[in-house]
Amino acid sequence: MTALSPLAPAAFPTMPRLAGVRLASHACGIRYQGRTDLLLVEVEPGTQVAGVYTRSLTCSAPVEWCKQASAKGKGRLLIVNSGNANAFTGSAGIASVERTVAKAADLFDCKKSEVYVASTGTIGVPLSDEKITDSLAAARAKLADDAWAEAAKAIMTTDTFPKGATRTAVIDGHQVIINGIAKGAGMIAPDMATMLSFVFTDADLPHDVLQELLAKGADRSFNAITVDSDTSTSDTLLLFATAKVKHARITDAKDKRLADFKAKLFEVLLELAHQVVKDGEGASKFVEITVTGAAGNKAAKRIALAIANSPLVKTAIAGEDANWGRVVMAVGKAGEKADRDKLCIKIGGVEVARDGQVVPGYDEAPVTEHMKGRTIVIETDVGIGKGKATVWTCDLTHAYIDINGSYRT
Amino acid sequence: MTALSPLAPAAFPTMPRLAGVRLASHACGIRYQGRTDLLLVEVEPGTQVAGVYTRSLTCSAPVEWCKQASAKGKGRLLIVNSGNANAFTGSAGIASVERTVAKAADLFDCKKSEVYVASTGTIGVPLSDEKITDSLAAARAKLADDAWAEAAKAIMTTDTFPKGATRTAVIDGHQVIINGIAKGAGMIAPDMATMLSFVFTDADLPHDVLQELLAKGADRSFNAITVDSDTSTSDTLLLFATAKVKHARITDAKDKRLADFKAKLFEVLLELAHQVVKDGEGASKFVEITVTGAAGNKAAKRIALAIANSPLVKTAIAGEDANWGRVVMAVGKAGEKADRDKLCIKIGGVEVARDGQVVPGYDEAPVTEHMKGRTIVIETDVGIGKGKATVWTCDLTHAYIDINGSYRT
Repeated sequence: MTALSPLAPAAFPTMPRLAGVRLASHACGIRYQGRTDLLLVEVEPGTQVAGVYTRSLTCSAPVEWCKQASAKGKGRLLIVNSGNANAFTGSAGIASVERTVAKAADLFDCKKSEVYVASTGTIGVPLSDEKITDSLAAARAKLADDAWAEAAKAIMTTDTFPKGATRTAVIDGHQVIINGIAKGAGMIAPDMATMLSFVFTDADLPHDVLQELLAKGADRSFNAITVDSDTSTSDTLLLFATAKVKHARITDAKDKRLADFKAKLFEVLLELAHQVVKDGEGASKFVEITVTGAAGNKAAKRIALAIANSPLVKTAIAGEDANWGRVVMAVGKAGEKADRDKLCIKIGGVEVARDGQVVPGYDEAPVTEHMKGRTIVIETDVGIGKGKATVWTCDLTHAYIDINGSYRT
Repeated sequence: MTALSPLAPAAFPTMPRLAGVRLASHACGIRYQGRTDLLLVEVEPGTQVAGVYTRSLTCSAPVEWCKQASAKGKGRLLIVNSGNANAFTGSAGIASVERTVAKAADLFDCKKSEVYVASTGTIGVPLSDEKITDSLAAARAKLADDAWAEAAKAIMTTDTFPKGATRTAVIDGHQVIINGIAKGAGMIAPDMATMLSFVFTDADLPHDVLQELLAKGADRSFNAITVDSDTSTSDTLLLFATAKVKHARITDAKDKRLADFKAKLFEVLLELAHQVVKDGEGASKFVEITVTGAAGNKAAKRIALAIANSPLVKTAIAGEDANWGRVVMAVGKAGEKADRDKLCIKIGGVEVARDGQVVPGYDEAPVTEHMKGRTIVIETDVGIGKGKATVWTCDLTHAYIDINGSYRT
């Protein structure tokens, strides 16, 4: 068992009950012993669903299933297992998903297209789906509306803490709740960035509106974090809206009455994404990288990710070394326009380089002090235009290698 | 001092004298103590030069200088220092190069455009070029035609062994020599892949022919290796031809009489590139990755590099874990066409996965045995077309983090 991340929050948040959602976790022994590895969530009829998925071309069978299901936009069940990703398991993997979904739909008397499945863990090993389906009845008996922390625990793999976030928002004078959980440690990079995250609300919003909000929110949160530049085959972000709070009917994601809900949803997504980074395998520092002055926002994000994914930048941060020259290197390799002789870099708010060279009389002391902290802030202005982006990552430490050199053994 | 790489060759090769080339190394105290850090190479009048450089948009002042010089194609001097890259040093860096070149041209009575400079080491720190120029006369007094090993040592930074390769080739019935040296350990990725490499021949070939051969050779060697996906601001590959062997005049790189020379030049470049990987920071395994069945050769190379640069693949190799699922993941994130359900993977020549899943009755024992060796061979067929590519990398170990977490301190 890996030690708790030094970046872990003090505690799992207190998550309020959310009308129309009941959760249960169960130990079905897929890979882990002595812990839960199955999450069952039942949402009431009428629930609308949106999804954002990995862009991997070798995506897992569960991801393929969910893509089809969330296009229809209705949901009744979510079944998640940890320990086996059911990825690169060929036709056996697809059959495994289909058996799970069929049995669950039968047991809960719903349509197969209303059942969502997600799997996380080892790739390439056939999933014993009968361990899941044999456990469904027992899990159903445990369904409860206050089991959020246990739910977050059941989906963990190499995570060192369960991840949750909650907000209340107001739509048209009615208070709604947004609760989210997530898991993810290594193999974290944009498209999608977390392996699994599930967000629930009692708001009454149609699939199209949910989908638009979720896609936008993912871009600024899960798709703006990276641990090691590797993209999982299983990344899944689902948003369920149970429609239990009866506010005005809203059919446009740009409706002004959604402003507060949108802001709070984005907060939940960002908080979960940050927790994923803070539990990055071996992470000892949380790093925020902002790029301004790029040709456009996309260019800014690409430069920011080049910095965030650079092993040389990440190891320097692990070593508490204010080696800003490596930031320059990363800007140069990003492939986006930059003017070497206009480049400005700040670390911890202190200007280090300006106009392409170290600032006159540079005093490294305050920067070195900043590097010793838990949160490292790097700002780069590339001197070309008005594009900007912020991404988050962690440092690259010995523990990353320890964890990943022996994950299967 | 870092321990010798376990992948180091048994010895530096015996490099023959090469007519028209004399070398000297000198300790001028730029950063390192108790070792040489300056290489001076004098080539005789009439020498033709070709160059291939980093594609970094934040390239160093010496790279900018060499690009202009090698476009003219004539050479008399090469001056290389280690310990300071003179990169991201703004107008001071350019002035430093200009002073060095002017003083050298004066001392050796040649044109400034015939002087090549290269610097490797820390980025962002102004280079004390007077330490170099003050040493030129002393270095000149030491010029010798047999100082190849010393030359390779003077340009090392975190390298644990000096890198050299030599071949003889026949052009039009005349024997010519090709000698090359290189340095490079971290910050190694295509565009360019090594930090510095200098190759010399006594063949009589014009700039245009040399440039075409060098660019092609670099694509299959230095631009097909990666240690950590980071691209240096200083990567420089130069080829000097002293024209001392008087064979037939050849003006076309496709001339059949160049077949043997071309083959041997490519061998020298590849051997040097492999040595760079074998001295990758913290490397304990040399990894060859071949991708076949891609949509085209470029697609194959991009997929191969996605595998080679994946921290999860590299840490699994360090841990001697035959975690082929991570190869699948890397294929999926490469962004090139692949058919998950046609994907085949071999490790150490043993088929592990076929048609998108583990082979029936897969016996991991011979694969695990292969993973314990020093050279790891991974073959992936993506099942789409006829494109193929081979790239080389090393594993990602604790030593990489040790070296790069504290390089400057």
